[in-house]
Amino acid sequence: MKTSIATVCLSGTLSEKLHAAAAAGFDGVEIFEPDLVGSPESPEEIRALAARLGLRLDLYQPMRDVEGVDEDAFLDVLRRAEAKFALMRRLGIDVVLCCSNVATATIDDDDVSASQLRRLGELAQDHGIRIAFEALAWGRYIDDYRRAWRIAELADHPAVGVCLDSFHILSRGHDPSAIEAIPAEKIFFLQLADAPALSMDVLSWSRHHRLFPGEGSFDLARFLTHVVRAGYTGPVSLEVFNDTFRQTDVRQTAVHARRSLRWLEDAVARGLADDRPQDYEPLPAFGGPRGFDFVEIKAEDTSGIEALLEIVGFTPRGKHRTKPVTLWTAGEARVVLNEQHARGLDPHIAALGFAVPDADALTRRAAELGTPFAYRRTYEGELALEGAVAPDGTEIFWSSSADGATADGAALRDEPLWAAEFEHGAAVQESPVSGIDHVSLSQPWQAIDEATLFFASVLELPTTSSTEVASPRGLVQSRVIQSRDGSIRIPLNVAPPILSGGRAALPQHVAFACDDIVALARTARSRGMAALPIPQNYYDDLAARFDLDDGFLATLRELDLVYDRESEGEYLHFYTATVGDLFCEFVERRGRYDGYGAGNAPVRLSAQRAGEGGAGRADIVRA
Amino acid sequence: MKTSIATVCLSGTLSEKLHAAAAAGFDGVEIFEPDLVGSPESPEEIRALAARLGLRLDLYQPMRDVEGVDEDAFLDVLRRAEAKFALMRRLGIDVVLCCSNVATATIDDDDVSASQLRRLGELAQDHGIRIAFEALAWGRYIDDYRRAWRIAELADHPAVGVCLDSFHILSRGHDPSAIEAIPAEKIFFLQLADAPALSMDVLSWSRHHRLFPGEGSFDLARFLTHVVRAGYTGPVSLEVFNDTFRQTDVRQTAVHARRSLRWLEDAVARGLADDRPQDYEPLPAFGGPRGFDFVEIKAEDTSGIEALLEIVGFTPRGKHRTKPVTLWTAGEARVVLNEQHARGLDPHIAALGFAVPDADALTRRAAELGTPFAYRRTYEGELALEGAVAPDGTEIFWSSSADGATADGAALRDEPLWAAEFEHGAAVQESPVSGIDHVSLSQPWQAIDEATLFFASVLELPTTSSTEVASPRGLVQSRVIQSRDGSIRIPLNVAPPILSGGRAALPQHVAFACDDIVALARTARSRGMAALPIPQNYYDDLAARFDLDDGFLATLRELDLVYDRESEGEYLHFYTATVGDLFCEFVERRGRYDGYGAGNAPVRLSAQRAGEGGAGRADIVRA
Repeated sequence: MKTSIATVCLSGTLSEKLHAAAAAGFDGVEIFEPDLVGSPESPEEIRALAARLGLRLDLYQPMRDVEGVDEDAFLDVLRRAEAKFALMRRLGIDVVLCCSNVATATIDDDDVSASQLRRLGELAQDHGIRIAFEALAWGRYIDDYRRAWRIAELADHPAVGVCLDSFHILSRGHDPSAIEAIPAEKIFFLQLADAPALSMDVLSWSRHHRLFPGEGSFDLARFLTHVVRAGYTGPVSLEVFNDTFRQTDVRQTAVHARRSLRWLEDAVARGLADDRPQDYEPLPAFGGPRGFDFVEIKAEDTSGIEALLEIVGFTPRGKHRTKPVTLWTAGEARVVLNEQHARGLDPHIAALGFAVPDADALTRRAAELGTPFAYRRTYEGELALEGAVAPDGTEIFWSSSADGATADGAALRDEPLWAAEFEHGAAVQESPVSGIDHVSLSQPWQAIDEATLFFASVLELPTTSSTEVASPRGLVQSRVIQSRDGSIRIPLNVAPPILSGGRAALPQHVAFACDDIVALARTARSRGMAALPIPQNYYDDLAARFDLDDGFLATLRELDLVYDRESEGEYLHFYTATVGDLFCEFVERRGRYDGYGAGNAPVRLSAQRAGEGGAGRADIVRA
Repeated sequence: MKTSIATVCLSGTLSEKLHAAAAAGFDGVEIFEPDLVGSPESPEEIRALAARLGLRLDLYQPMRDVEGVDEDAFLDVLRRAEAKFALMRRLGIDVVLCCSNVATATIDDDDVSASQLRRLGELAQDHGIRIAFEALAWGRYIDDYRRAWRIAELADHPAVGVCLDSFHILSRGHDPSAIEAIPAEKIFFLQLADAPALSMDVLSWSRHHRLFPGEGSFDLARFLTHVVRAGYTGPVSLEVFNDTFRQTDVRQTAVHARRSLRWLEDAVARGLADDRPQDYEPLPAFGGPRGFDFVEIKAEDTSGIEALLEIVGFTPRGKHRTKPVTLWTAGEARVVLNEQHARGLDPHIAALGFAVPDADALTRRAAELGTPFAYRRTYEGELALEGAVAPDGTEIFWSSSADGATADGAALRDEPLWAAEFEHGAAVQESPVSGIDHVSLSQPWQAIDEATLFFASVLELPTTSSTEVASPRGLVQSRVIQSRDGSIRIPLNVAPPILSGGRAALPQHVAFACDDIVALARTARSRGMAALPIPQNYYDDLAARFDLDDGFLATLRELDLVYDRESEGEYLHFYTATVGDLFCEFVERRGRYDGYGAGNAPVRLSAQRAGEGGAGRADIVRA
């Protein structure tokens, strides 16, 4: 698949954008006119720079308000166009994007527009240039790609064709299947953007909220499939106006953008199967993640976490034979505590491990998606875990199940191979904790869309729900990524910008599953665990909302348990105090409850805020 | 005017919110239920705290989905309500907000809703409570305040009335004049919010984008006037859901909120004139600002700025007799250079002075608006300037014109009294600079709405336009505040959040007016001024956009001048290099051009970004 990106997607100067696009592996770029106008480099320098970087200059854009005008105005269009065509020759670009008229159109007549496009095409042809006519979703008269194509067909000139843009078509709810009826040689260009489902005016939606493919709600695989079926073989180009991506690091955003096209190419290739074009390749298939292999918590001193794990019945499985790392297990939960290279660090989630059927395939897949690799020092005889760095900096590792990756998940009950590297452990004991229910990671606000694509594309973990939670310091955005079978659940939380100052400033947490939370809470408290105190007002409200048994309510109150109920089941959970950037949660799911008690999160956030006023540093277990 | 504020408007814990509301001078608060539920304090403690702080607890809110349901569901409503009424008695609150049904309504029948409200009213009355029924803009069946009132009238119970909310009424475009037909004793509560003109779904608009009065596009003075004419004398309460205000410092936001109500009270009082209620007071009128009195630039070393001022023909008017401060003047432009308490500071705009007809009245006005006062050390025989601190930290001073404040502006041509405090100055010389055209201040993103209200309410400087400008680091929001006669123009610019990290991270600038910019640019360059280099591509684009004379275009190119043209006139300007947080601009307005060349700002921002790569520190004038 030939890839391209509009320079408006990226931050920085034009020269920085070209370098970043080339480094990320794009084949070409669209030059967005204001980027050139503001650039100190001459058109010849830009052309030479692109040539050296191996980037095609695919398109010059946009030329606005070129048709549907009276003759006087059209003569001015031709004058402007002549100057721009001369400029394009200096750049060596031979396709220009012409948008349907927004500002100056006075004539709503296909014949007039077609005739003017034909005359513009004649002028373009003299310069060796072709014009790609595009229906803007907010065009004054022409706002549908089918009408734009009709007019281009009427213009009947070899230098006049269309540009298709997924945003302009899908934002209006237009059926993209008619694309297949357009002759391939008349589709001069293709622009792709995803977008979240928003109910707002389409211009603001387009200018501020577009996303890279895989991050929004458009079915771009289906869209692109229509274009491929039409026979289009030109560049597949990203044109994403997004307030955040305009600010983020240009190199990282280019890699992120390129990843979205690789993900989309895979989806189209798999959908078309044997009908796929030669240059559409599926990604290596690794079988999907099967469950959490481990959670790694890192700190200069992990003993506070060890104390907690001990009182909830984890077994200390010993120390790694070459590193200052220990392993604790309970049921299927494996927690790795890492004190290496951790000077000054408070406890935080440093890595997640996933069990997968085919780790090698996932490693190749991650490489094709341009993922930064995670490095771990490995000695002779140790299992080398492969991994990647998620956009928030968390390391993600994967390994094949011990038994060679059966697909039914049963293999997870066996120990992974790497567990044998830990020595001097105790005999495994029973624990009320049965596994890891979910891991919540806090995200810098500018990384959440990239994280969504990262987990979906690399690890086949799609976003399944999205919500907002009020905290005393502002609204927290929360998105849940989850495997299809629910064995992996990762809520991603975004702190309000003032709180975070660009960093991920909410605590993370690990939630452990259990079958009897009341017994677990009683035991843990009796052994000194500091639970997060829940306000009494919460229980009064719970009593008003749900018709709960008095004794049950008294138990919740006594143990600082919070509660949720849906038609599918119930959810009981409690939180520990926060140490460093981390707290733990213990949860019991009853029935088929599939959520996270999001309604309780504001109470938790308020209680955590109230706790910040306390004297001295918190600890999870009383000394 | 009795004032109140919903706790949801503010950040922090419930206790912090109450302290902040009281400190800002509110008479009462609405308790937003989730704030209480998340609070460790008992209802009795909250009641006692409010009593100690002198705050009334005006309203408990919200109670949802209470009518339009079948009998089974209504029995559950009564059960919930009974628990909440008991809670309200503990709090000592006697009015509860009941919203029209969104989630559970199944019966679209005024009689059913009225009958259920009557039964709810009977239960409420037993607890000494009244219910204020409100039509949400997105209510399932009831979404219009006129229908809500019809149903309350049908309910015909002393404990059943309505709550009016400006957002729910004005967002739908409903005519508020029918409010005057509602009996005053049936309006149980009044909530006010402003909002920007946005085209999006009304629920998202309401939940994220409400503003305090005076910051959006609603005509709240007219709205409140209808309510006053209806005879309502209860609290005027702010209910503003805003993603930013939920994050900002709670004390500052409460003061900001209170200011918005004082501004609105003034507008209503002035509109009603002799018909105003006794407790609606106009603000002291100061006659409106007449022009810039001075701009103060502060730095440890201001000599770089002095060199620039000298070569563009400013006269050094000497040193202040008691402070390390100098005055430079040219035409009506006065620049104060301040090296006091400036160790380590780069040049930046520290203060603006305005000439006003009645400085004492403005001082009283600022005090009534809860403005933080600016302090300047003043010695015997010196003019004590009164001033305020704007939300971005810039100090704003004002003084009456020397001749005793004639209203025609002519007085500005005379020197202000404070100028006599400068000694050892040179004889005033002619200068090509005629005055200060505008001053551009960069704003932290979280302060822009507060700044808008500050300038509008304290200084009668309304926002006249708003735009967005692309920069290599993201979109810059720009709002212009401007006096009615154009003598004061202040574009406020907001940097993209990543760049700013919460601070105002764009350079500020002072733009000086002149009558012959070509001559000024030539002279200044010949004397060593470093102009910001404008890319050649810009001039190629200019030639394509405007049909300019070749010689004129060559002059623009030669002198790094940028250009804009509208039907009203032309605008020529150039920028100096940036030193510290500051650059200067020189502008010539031709005809009746009234803008700021916003189309040139992306080029300027790109050129400034390109310049950052240069070696060493920039200076405005070559040594």
